[in-house]
Amino acid sequence: MARIVVKFGGTSVGDPKRIENAAEKIYQEIKRGHEVVVVVSAMAGVTNQLVDYCHQITPDHTAEEYDMVVASGEQVTSGLMAIALHKRGIEARSFAGWQVPLICSDQHGRARIDDIPPENLEQALSSKIVPVVAGFQGVSRSNRISTLGRGGSDTTAVALAAALNADRCDIYTDVDGVYTTDPRMVPDAQKLDLVSYEEMLEMAALGAKVLHPRSVELAMAYNVSLQVLSSFAPQVGSQLPGTLIVSEDKIMEKQIVNGVAFTRNEAKISILGIPDSPGTAAAIFDPLCAADINVDVIVQNISANGSTADMTFTVPKLDAQKTVEILEKLPFAQQSQIRIDTKIAKISIIGIGMSSHSGVARTMFRTLADHRINIQAITTSEIKISVLIDEQFTEAAVKALHQAFELGKTDMRATGS
Amino acid sequence: MARIVVKFGGTSVGDPKRIENAAEKIYQEIKRGHEVVVVVSAMAGVTNQLVDYCHQITPDHTAEEYDMVVASGEQVTSGLMAIALHKRGIEARSFAGWQVPLICSDQHGRARIDDIPPENLEQALSSKIVPVVAGFQGVSRSNRISTLGRGGSDTTAVALAAALNADRCDIYTDVDGVYTTDPRMVPDAQKLDLVSYEEMLEMAALGAKVLHPRSVELAMAYNVSLQVLSSFAPQVGSQLPGTLIVSEDKIMEKQIVNGVAFTRNEAKISILGIPDSPGTAAAIFDPLCAADINVDVIVQNISANGSTADMTFTVPKLDAQKTVEILEKLPFAQQSQIRIDTKIAKISIIGIGMSSHSGVARTMFRTLADHRINIQAITTSEIKISVLIDEQFTEAAVKALHQAFELGKTDMRATGS
Repeated sequence: MARIVVKFGGTSVGDPKRIENAAEKIYQEIKRGHEVVVVVSAMAGVTNQLVDYCHQITPDHTAEEYDMVVASGEQVTSGLMAIALHKRGIEARSFAGWQVPLICSDQHGRARIDDIPPENLEQALSSKIVPVVAGFQGVSRSNRISTLGRGGSDTTAVALAAALNADRCDIYTDVDGVYTTDPRMVPDAQKLDLVSYEEMLEMAALGAKVLHPRSVELAMAYNVSLQVLSSFAPQVGSQLPGTLIVSEDKIMEKQIVNGVAFTRNEAKISILGIPDSPGTAAAIFDPLCAADINVDVIVQNISANGSTADMTFTVPKLDAQKTVEILEKLPFAQQSQIRIDTKIAKISIIGIGMSSHSGVARTMFRTLADHRINIQAITTSEIKISVLIDEQFTEAAVKALHQAFELGKTDMRATGS
Repeated sequence: MARIVVKFGGTSVGDPKRIENAAEKIYQEIKRGHEVVVVVSAMAGVTNQLVDYCHQITPDHTAEEYDMVVASGEQVTSGLMAIALHKRGIEARSFAGWQVPLICSDQHGRARIDDIPPENLEQALSSKIVPVVAGFQGVSRSNRISTLGRGGSDTTAVALAAALNADRCDIYTDVDGVYTTDPRMVPDAQKLDLVSYEEMLEMAALGAKVLHPRSVELAMAYNVSLQVLSSFAPQVGSQLPGTLIVSEDKIMEKQIVNGVAFTRNEAKISILGIPDSPGTAAAIFDPLCAADINVDVIVQNISANGSTADMTFTVPKLDAQKTVEILEKLPFAQQSQIRIDTKIAKISIIGIGMSSHSGVARTMFRTLADHRINIQAITTSEIKISVLIDEQFTEAAVKALHQAFELGKTDMRATGS
C-alpha cells in the first residue's frame, strides 16, 4: 500500500462530468489498496472569471479581498469531488485551506506555505476518509484566506505530499507527460518516462507548461516523487502512464540531452557602455529586483573600447518597457546606450548527463550554424545550454536540435557525441 | 450616530456594477455618520448554478459537501463588496461565516445559529473598518461550513443586528417595501410605512416574498427594527424610503386590516370518517412532521353521522403525493376516505387591529359571498383570517378584499366596520 497525493487541474475538473471522471481515477487507486489524498484546482475558467470581477470594480483591488474572492473556486470543486466520491461508496470529505490548515504567509496573492500541521488529514486518513483539499489556498496567521498565486494547486499537492510523507504525488493534467519538446511544434516529440527535478525545473522555467516551477522546486527540496499524467487517457495495466520526476540519483542511465525547450515570452535588453567597475551589475539589477522583474540570461562583456562594458539580459516581454524606464534612471544612463529587442526566442537543450559529456555545446552550435541561425547570446549551466536567437527561427531551431540530439520517436537515443 | 446592519440580496449584488451601486448606498450611510455592518447574498443565479452542479453529480449528495459548495457564492460577493468600498476610500474587510465566527448547529443545509461571539466584528468597528459578512453561512462546532437554508442571508443580517445591538437592520432587495397586497395583481396596492412583526410574519408565511419568515421571527425575538427597502430606488432626503417592521407596541395607530395575502402553492387534503377519539390528530400529524411536511390550515369537524370526524388541512403542493402515501398507512386508513385538491388558493387578511374590532370576519365573508366565491375552509388567529377557495378565483378574491378593506392608494383607510 502506498500513500499517494493526486492533484487534478482545472480542465480535469472542468464540469461535473469531468469531476466524475476524475473520481473514477481516484476510485481505481483506492481499489488497488492505496491511501489517497486529493487536491483540486478550480473548474477551468472560473478563476479567470473571478479575477475579472475584481478588475471590473477596480484594477487596484486589495490583495486580501482578491484572495477571498478567487479562493472560492477551489472550495467549490473540493465539495463537488467529495460528492462524486461518496457516489462511488468512498468516504471522503472536503477541506478548504483553513480547515487543513495550510498555514501561509500574509503575502496575499502570492503567499508562501509556512506550515501544514498534518493532524487533521492524518486523522481523516486513519478513519479511511479520503481528504479532498482545495488547492491554491491557505490561511494566514491572522486568519485570512491567502492564495499561493497561479499554478498554486501543484504547490499545494507537493507540499501536502511532503507534510504527509506520501510515496508519490500524481499531477493529473490535460497532457499525458513531459515531452522532449512541444509536440505541437515537433510531432515527432517523445514522451519521457523519467526526468530529474533539475531537468524538469529547466523545462518548466523555459516554457514547457506542464508543471509550475515552484512545485518542482518544492518536490526537489523534500524529495517528493512527482508524476505527471493525463486525466483523460485510460491507464494501461499497472504501467506508469505518465512522466515520473525524481531525484537525479534515482536515475541510473542519465540522458545526455533529454529535451529542447523554448520560449518567445522574453525580450532582450542591452545596455552598452556601462562603467567597467565593481557595483555596476548591482546598480542595474537591484532596482529591477525591487520592481519584481524576473531577469534571465545575463551576459556581460568588455566593450570594444576596453574601458567600459556591455550588459545583455532578458526580461518577460510584459516588463520590457518598465525595465527600460528603470534603466534610464541609472546614474550612468546618460553615457550608455539602451537597446531593446522583443523579437527574440530563447532555445535551450537540457539534460543531466550533459555535465559529464563534452561536445554537447559543439553539436548545438554546429547544428544552428548549419541552419544559418545566428546566436545572439549564450548561457550555460550544469544541465542546460540556452541561446538567444531571432524569434522567426524558433521552429527551425527546435526541430533541428531535436533531430541532432536524436530525441524523436524514430531516432535512436543519443549515447554521446 | 446609529449602528446599522445593511443586507443586500442577490439581485442587488447581481454583477460588479450592482455591487458598486450597493457600495454607494453604504457610503451614503457612513457619510451620515452611521456605523455600518454589511451582509451580502450571492450574486443572483450563482447559488442555483452551484446547487445544480451538486445535483448533476447526484441528487443524493451529502449535506456537508453541498454546504461547502454553495457557501462559496456569498464568499465571492463579500470580497467584491469590500473591494468596492475600498475604491470609495472606506476601510472594509470581508468576513466568511467561519471568520466572524457565526457558530451554527451541524444540521447542514438548514443550520440553526447557536452563537455569534461579537469580538471580531466589534474590533473591526472600533478600528473604523466596515465588516462585510458573507450571508447564509456559518461554521459548525466541528469546524465545517454550514448553511442556514434558503433566505438565510436575511437571517444572518438580523442575527448580527441582535448580536451587535444594532439600532436597525436594513434589508435591501428588489422591491421597495411591503405592500397591502401583490402590486402585480392589484396595481392599486399601497406600500406600507409601518407593519408589526406579527403582521409581517403572517404576510411572509402567506406568500409575500419580501422577507424570509425566519428572519422576521428572529427580529421579533430580539426586538430588532427591520427595514425593507429597494437597492434600486434613489433615497429621497432623510425620509425612510421603505417599510419599517417593528414591535406592535411601537405602532400607535393600529390598522385593522393591513394587507391581503395569498398563496397558490398549497394543496388541500381531506381525510373523512376518522375515529372521533383522543389521539387521532396526533396519529395523523406525527408522521407528517417526521417527514418534514409543513402542515397549515387545520380544520376538524364532526362528520354527518356523528360518530366519526372529518379532518381538512393544507400542505405544500410538492408534498401532496407524499402526504397521501403517509395517510394511506394509518391504522384507520381502511375505514376512512382520503381526498386531495391541488386547485385551491389560500387568501388571508392580516392586521394587528383586528383582534379588538368585531365585524372584520363578517366583511370578509360577505365580500366573498357577493362575488359568489365559495369558502372551503376557514381558520383564524388574533391577527389574521384565512380562507381556502377555488384557485381560479384568487385574483377576484384578492381584488375584492383589497377594495372592501379600503387598502388601495385611492381609498380612504379603513377605520373599523
